[in-house]
Amino acid sequence: MVERDVGLKEISKENFFETLKKFERPWGANYLAMYSSLWDGYTKDPDLMMIPADDHLAHRGDGVFDTMRCVNGCIYQLQRHLRRLERSANSIGIKLPLSTEELTGLVVEVTKKTGEKDCIIRVTVSRGPGGFSTNPYECFGPQLYINVIKYNPPPSYFYTKGVSLITSKYPQKDPLFANIKSCNYLLNVLMKKEALDNSADYSIGVDRDGYITEGSTENIIVFTKENELFFPPFDTVLTGTTAYRIKELAENLVSQSVLKEVSERKIHKDVVYEAKEVFLTGTSINIVPVSTYDGRKISDGMPGELFQRLRIMLENDMVNNKDLLTPVFD
Amino acid sequence: MVERDVGLKEISKENFFETLKKFERPWGANYLAMYSSLWDGYTKDPDLMMIPADDHLAHRGDGVFDTMRCVNGCIYQLQRHLRRLERSANSIGIKLPLSTEELTGLVVEVTKKTGEKDCIIRVTVSRGPGGFSTNPYECFGPQLYINVIKYNPPPSYFYTKGVSLITSKYPQKDPLFANIKSCNYLLNVLMKKEALDNSADYSIGVDRDGYITEGSTENIIVFTKENELFFPPFDTVLTGTTAYRIKELAENLVSQSVLKEVSERKIHKDVVYEAKEVFLTGTSINIVPVSTYDGRKISDGMPGELFQRLRIMLENDMVNNKDLLTPVFD
Repeated sequence: MVERDVGLKEISKENFFETLKKFERPWGANYLAMYSSLWDGYTKDPDLMMIPADDHLAHRGDGVFDTMRCVNGCIYQLQRHLRRLERSANSIGIKLPLSTEELTGLVVEVTKKTGEKDCIIRVTVSRGPGGFSTNPYECFGPQLYINVIKYNPPPSYFYTKGVSLITSKYPQKDPLFANIKSCNYLLNVLMKKEALDNSADYSIGVDRDGYITEGSTENIIVFTKENELFFPPFDTVLTGTTAYRIKELAENLVSQSVLKEVSERKIHKDVVYEAKEVFLTGTSINIVPVSTYDGRKISDGMPGELFQRLRIMLENDMVNNKDLLTPVFD
Repeated sequence: MVERDVGLKEISKENFFETLKKFERPWGANYLAMYSSLWDGYTKDPDLMMIPADDHLAHRGDGVFDTMRCVNGCIYQLQRHLRRLERSANSIGIKLPLSTEELTGLVVEVTKKTGEKDCIIRVTVSRGPGGFSTNPYECFGPQLYINVIKYNPPPSYFYTKGVSLITSKYPQKDPLFANIKSCNYLLNVLMKKEALDNSADYSIGVDRDGYITEGSTENIIVFTKENELFFPPFDTVLTGTTAYRIKELAENLVSQSVLKEVSERKIHKDVVYEAKEVFLTGTSINIVPVSTYDGRKISDGMPGELFQRLRIMLENDMVNNKDLLTPVFD
């Protein structure tokens, strides 16, 4: 062995936690619980919420995830989220380490441990630990991480005044990858950064031909002056569980003659400028109205009637639709 | 608080390490050391080689990395790797937490601690811990992780018989993202998987127009029957430090009239089928000859003369070129 430098501290199991103490994490109070299949247990201690550096998730983003909400003690659309998680995993050759039934039980159990009736639940399935190459076969098996986090509602102006949206300058994902909710979210990070750097709330992707795609973690919905409600085709963007549910709910408004049509179609960004109303949807934000797009007002720049109607339909669904609610607490 | 289930074990600092013991990691013997800026220290204990689950690296692949080799006690092309790391980081709005000079000192120091003269050094700069959203501004600052790993040479047939290569079916990265060595490597994972699933050693990307791009973690070089040495343009693929150095070395062969031309240009895959020799390059493999592409032999399917020549030039450079070697051990 060579002679050692001094200076760099060696960390062992004896001084590990003491060393971690110096890393202050005030936001750790938001972290209610984490389950890891490597422990087959859960922790409430934010210091312990770690993953191995050699899990391919950590060095390749090689994993998939889904995020759902527990609302007043019931998880909304849990089965749909888990089915999408399974589809994402299968798309990249990862088999879920548990059946969706077992996973349902585990998600409920971990959430219950927190005692929190309104929270965000993040389920990640990773390729697993095994080395530092790109080769998925060096891993000994997929791992499951579940993080339960406090739900912090978006600022109230989102709903009372609407949000500002800009067109992203970044090249968008190929539909193959857009449809996999993987941990390769650098584009999504850069789109969020781009929005904030330009004093906007959100940015939206546009493909090579000028058709809008999706936001950093949001779907977009466009309501035209002809009373048509358009969704970018779900085979070209991630099938958002909130957007998809709103589409189902909105279909009732066609039979009531409130809407002329509800459909998936390619939407050119010029159509967005001229829309009657525009919405962004997501698990955390539900549905929010867009007040400006690229600095131009959408209609009068205020939340419109359809927004109010869809918001009420969705919020009602989230607490009353027994078919889509999984109770956590008895 | 609600009544708790039994069944799921709660992990605390008291039983954390004991729980980890059940997670057997025989390959951990390859892990010589890990430095983390969160500890500002290093560890040789594979159990402790972890990153926080809320580092955006872990849930978005939001970080950049570079991998270099220590050969016989000297790190080859360290400065070039660190400059590329800095370029990658800056491209996504991450400032390196240390200057490249300080980083050089740290990489040398951590490597020295292992006492290992032949190893792989992986330097990762992450967005940092701070939450679970895509918003980079929720993080309190970039973190640095350095992993020193045993160098395991590729199988000897790579050099004596050559490797098999197939065309990837996956849509390739936009050049903007191809040029950033980020931890969004799902495409690269799937390309490695695709190769192995098809009983090939490697796969190579092809763009929409049929021009070859890059491998999972390899660059490709094509030597034509007209004695031209072609590299796919480095503004469309990741600028491999090995490929780039081979380009520099090969330029000497033009003045010696061994090669007619050395240049970057778009290479159609049909040109590869007809090549005299084809090579893959990378930090771990150096340079390897391709014996077959999509099942067709390259020339007679055996390593050619230029391969032998370039290999010797590169291996010589790796141990004798003082300008590109950073000594670790005094």
